[in-house]
Amino acid sequence: MPARIQRLKHLLDELAIESLLVTDETNVRYLSGFTGDSSYLLISGDRTAILSDRRYETQIAAQCGDLQAFVRGPDRNMNQLVTEAVESFSVAEVGFEASSVSCSLFEGFRQHLPNVDWKPTEGLVQKLRQIKEPEEVDAIRRAIHIAQRSYQAIRATLRIGQTELQIAYELESWIREFGGQGCGFPTIIAIDANAALPHAQPGTVKIDADSTVLIDWGAKYDGYTSDMTRMIAIGTIQPKLAEIYPIVLEAQLAAIDAIRPGVQLAAVDEAARSVIRNAGYGDQFGHGLGHGIGLQVHESPRMSAIMEGELEAGMIVTVEPGIYLPGNLGVRIEDDVLVTSQGREVLSSSPKGLDDCTVML
Amino acid sequence: MPARIQRLKHLLDELAIESLLVTDETNVRYLSGFTGDSSYLLISGDRTAILSDRRYETQIAAQCGDLQAFVRGPDRNMNQLVTEAVESFSVAEVGFEASSVSCSLFEGFRQHLPNVDWKPTEGLVQKLRQIKEPEEVDAIRRAIHIAQRSYQAIRATLRIGQTELQIAYELESWIREFGGQGCGFPTIIAIDANAALPHAQPGTVKIDADSTVLIDWGAKYDGYTSDMTRMIAIGTIQPKLAEIYPIVLEAQLAAIDAIRPGVQLAAVDEAARSVIRNAGYGDQFGHGLGHGIGLQVHESPRMSAIMEGELEAGMIVTVEPGIYLPGNLGVRIEDDVLVTSQGREVLSSSPKGLDDCTVML
Repeated sequence: MPARIQRLKHLLDELAIESLLVTDETNVRYLSGFTGDSSYLLISGDRTAILSDRRYETQIAAQCGDLQAFVRGPDRNMNQLVTEAVESFSVAEVGFEASSVSCSLFEGFRQHLPNVDWKPTEGLVQKLRQIKEPEEVDAIRRAIHIAQRSYQAIRATLRIGQTELQIAYELESWIREFGGQGCGFPTIIAIDANAALPHAQPGTVKIDADSTVLIDWGAKYDGYTSDMTRMIAIGTIQPKLAEIYPIVLEAQLAAIDAIRPGVQLAAVDEAARSVIRNAGYGDQFGHGLGHGIGLQVHESPRMSAIMEGELEAGMIVTVEPGIYLPGNLGVRIEDDVLVTSQGREVLSSSPKGLDDCTVML
Repeated sequence: MPARIQRLKHLLDELAIESLLVTDETNVRYLSGFTGDSSYLLISGDRTAILSDRRYETQIAAQCGDLQAFVRGPDRNMNQLVTEAVESFSVAEVGFEASSVSCSLFEGFRQHLPNVDWKPTEGLVQKLRQIKEPEEVDAIRRAIHIAQRSYQAIRATLRIGQTELQIAYELESWIREFGGQGCGFPTIIAIDANAALPHAQPGTVKIDADSTVLIDWGAKYDGYTSDMTRMIAIGTIQPKLAEIYPIVLEAQLAAIDAIRPGVQLAAVDEAARSVIRNAGYGDQFGHGLGHGIGLQVHESPRMSAIMEGELEAGMIVTVEPGIYLPGNLGVRIEDDVLVTSQGREVLSSSPKGLDDCTVML
């Protein structure tokens, strides 16, 4: 049995759940190696099966050929396939991923398999995915390396008149040139007041001789994504940036410093938030501190004021405090940090001192 | 009240449902114009509110500033916000989108608002989205135009040694150059046997002097996506392609010919499938005939053997039969078709005769 499925089995045994239907696409990939969509896994005892459709027959043989496969043609729906698999495995109790199964889907399961005892589960595979294996850490290191080279390329070739969208496209081209699969998520390139929108979408605003630019980007490598944010000031640093930036940087460094196994998630958030609050900008930091990265850009654990739980060695999280002044300016600084048995390792290394922000065009 | 919300209200009135919580991201965008994520709408009587978080405050003001907004900071979760909105609207009965709400999310709603009567609904907004408004048809026409120009550019610049991935990247660059927002979905560039995988992922296989290439791509324009597939044969047409291609084309033309308001979805599928079955390849056409396109690449209606329902004027669907011979070759031909009051209009126009497939390098 593959190691990941074995670890999942331990979790199921602890909860005394006989079998699990894995419906979340990323969880299916994590456990089986299958990279397609619309497919489930059924895990019971020492048996694991993949439930998919004929479009993926060849891909399943190549990516997870050792799994038993239930494959439907266009004349059968997924409910019928789940029924076939559950009946073939003769299981009476099926755990399901309650965050991934919609109310409609569940209603279908229940109607097709009325005698099965359905047990909602929460984040079991996500819990395994939090702790990165060495080869996963390597993939994320590589994603970060590609992302940082691409950022350097963009910075080195920045020019007056480029639009946010152009920069975003060029960044993606560099990521691909450097061996990445593309962006890990839609790149944010936000000039001046646009940076005050934490989730700005790049548009037609152009680089000017005194622009301030926020870049929030990630590269994808072998399925894993990086996630960083850096600021660039063209020409000279504007007074408001000079005031705000050091506060955000101090907050970010304080949070990084707080990272170690066993620390409460909310405590890391508070380490950054208290710096920003004490500087008088508490209300202008309207999002959580950071999140896990991996096969998805947003994974567990989330670090915010309302999260319970603690950091563990092997987790990789973003640390990204910000201050947003609508209509004026936004500042965010974001790095990717590995929790180690000793404390932490900051995996990303692009310079982030205030002086490093300036670019002369 | 905006026209789309008004139409939704009519559907709710028919079902005698007092209010609706819209949780599906694309439905939120369709009804409100808001293009962010993690946000809901609550619609009740003549009131509509958006429920979101502080990251999106400025964007909400810009995109749907006339809606009442419930905005949470990082110290509150979405369940608390839903509770606040539902209580503020004083509604006793709340419809929810059962396909978009996970079992966990629903459990949270129920716990926070135990006295509310929760009514599952299925595909109400999706039903509205099926029928495209004139400006939506225009956006899709533009997306198709951009996609077709980009395909021409790729075809005109095709060269020995290009990998599937390179072609996919160049295609996306052209789409952006021509004014699109990028690809509507991950492009499939599948050379030779890779084309036998209906959902192939582009990789490192290279164009050779006798390659057969399948290209399945879409451009995104103003949020709307096109979706087409064409085949290219380098040099001369291989005998197997020469045998299979006319069957798929005949099947595709038969299905297009069957499209008109009032025809059963399964009947259009059968129009293509019977041609392929009669040619002896019924088992090699392992997916449905097509699907609606719009803000998402896969929308209702789906045309397949097991779908109930009929086509209506204003729908735009793909027609994409295929024959897949694992380890050897795959052929698919796909166009986008608008159902008109008279019958149909094929919106895409890239040549698709067998002769048109050949490219001499």
